[in-house]
Amino acid sequence: MTTQIDTCFAALSDPTRRAVVERLVAGPASVSDLAAPHDIALPTFMRHLRVLEDCGLVRSIKKGRVRTCHIEAAPLIEVQGWLEWQRRVWEQRLDRLSALAEDIERNTQ
Amino acid sequence: MTTQIDTCFAALSDPTRRAVVERLVAGPASVSDLAAPHDIALPTFMRHLRVLEDCGLVRSIKKGRVRTCHIEAAPLIEVQGWLEWQRRVWEQRLDRLSALAEDIERNTQ
Repeated sequence: MTTQIDTCFAALSDPTRRAVVERLVAGPASVSDLAAPHDIALPTFMRHLRVLEDCGLVRSIKKGRVRTCHIEAAPLIEVQGWLEWQRRVWEQRLDRLSALAEDIERNTQ
Repeated sequence: MTTQIDTCFAALSDPTRRAVVERLVAGPASVSDLAAPHDIALPTFMRHLRVLEDCGLVRSIKKGRVRTCHIEAAPLIEVQGWLEWQRRVWEQRLDRLSALAEDIERNTQ
């Protein structure tokens, strides 16, 4: 079973999609504004946007002829939280190793 | 061109591979210890491990008949750093919006 965190990580494995996220965390944007900096065909860009919408990282609303996209914080926070947790466990382990090394050094002096 | 951050995000899109990372941030482990909690065939597990080694998140050393795996911090920190940056930009934007809302409220009282 594929979960939202799986599909979010997969969505973020592409530089165009990460660039869209980088743009949207700063504020909502229209699809044409989002596509403008990318030198790719619009249908290709729309597929990237669809991947971001499918995993829930991006939502869009159409008003008249303009579709505006915004970031959804919850999945972004979930993915970031998982990585922060890994980093914290890893750093705590380094701290323990470092304390252990100091103990050994003290006891052998 | 696929970069290391692309392949790391892709590697982390699978729950078995994330479980391996969760185990390895706590300390090195043999392949058999890593595989033990997973109810999948060893060749399938080895493919997951290979994906983690290919993107640089995991390194392994063989001593005699035991292959020991450990986490590589640099790519983990890079991926985590990118997400932390997004979260920070997003939170700063919320803070600005909140300050703006307070200003508006004060000026209309």
